[in-house]
Amino acid sequence: MKKSIGPQAIIQPNPVLIIGSYDQNGRPNIMAVAWGGICCSKPPCATISLRQATYTYGNIQHNKAFTINIPSASFVKEADYVGIYSGKNEDKFKALGLTPVKSDVVNAPYVKEFPVVLECGVLKVVEIGLHTQFIGEIKDIKADESILDENGLPDIEKVKPFIYDSAGPGYYALGDFLGKPYSVGRKK
Amino acid sequence: MKKSIGPQAIIQPNPVLIIGSYDQNGRPNIMAVAWGGICCSKPPCATISLRQATYTYGNIQHNKAFTINIPSASFVKEADYVGIYSGKNEDKFKALGLTPVKSDVVNAPYVKEFPVVLECGVLKVVEIGLHTQFIGEIKDIKADESILDENGLPDIEKVKPFIYDSAGPGYYALGDFLGKPYSVGRKK
Repeated sequence: MKKSIGPQAIIQPNPVLIIGSYDQNGRPNIMAVAWGGICCSKPPCATISLRQATYTYGNIQHNKAFTINIPSASFVKEADYVGIYSGKNEDKFKALGLTPVKSDVVNAPYVKEFPVVLECGVLKVVEIGLHTQFIGEIKDIKADESILDENGLPDIEKVKPFIYDSAGPGYYALGDFLGKPYSVGRKK
Repeated sequence: MKKSIGPQAIIQPNPVLIIGSYDQNGRPNIMAVAWGGICCSKPPCATISLRQATYTYGNIQHNKAFTINIPSASFVKEADYVGIYSGKNEDKFKALGLTPVKSDVVNAPYVKEFPVVLECGVLKVVEIGLHTQFIGEIKDIKADESILDENGLPDIEKVKPFIYDSAGPGYYALGDFLGKPYSVGRKK
């Protein structure tokens, strides 16, 4: 028998995505987002949800571009920091000793130290409620060569992305390999 | 120096979400989705992306409702199965020995054996490209009492949700606790 716990914004797990953008003066900023992910394969698109009150919201509306950086678990403190403090009041790249790199395909910066970045141009803006959804077309992905697998794709066991749980709350590492998709459930 | 790997639908990690819906004859169906997550806190909303070709797409368009079920890692085979085979051709609940339960708040079934379910009414439909995004308002969440924490919320270490990696590809378990959000990155 299941118990009703009421309408809440809870899904488990959530990713930890670090959003890069420039402000109106060209100053780079990063913030943490847990509400986002892939939303289309053709064209390849990713979605992130932001409150209008965030500095990044204004930056993306201005430049129609953002990056989605995937931090390794070794950067959990930095990811948490950029989710707590606003770019309105400080340069978070400088505060953390991280390096902004200007994307060559969209007007947004990415984080040199993080292993994978999606470079996105705004395709649609969807007003929902307290949050606005930015749907970005992925113009390119750039990745550190050291984390690529034999097919030239990011090897998740080398990227070591981590998870955000809003219900707990907690950050969690990637765990054990459980099986191959389109395989473990196939009829014998 | 980062290497360009081209525009692709890759984010790490993705959740594994099992979508429940009724077809036009009231037959319950489930499918697996990796592209989805929370997209707004007020009203609490979740988004899932589907191809028009899926059986679930037609079901949701018909009923304007769906459930998002979070499977435990012990159900990795069942989750993979419902991502491989279509409800057009079989009753996947019956094939897997899972139990459909009619939601008391939306016209969609949920999976009795999975620990957490979000019951969603369609708020918006966003056409993107190959995929269509359904934004659902979360009308209620129901959860097994055995996985609730002391605050009455789903304890992720008891839910044991798992992760889908489309780049690998692979399913992965939840790993070690890394720290508390809004805490580990706070200025001293």
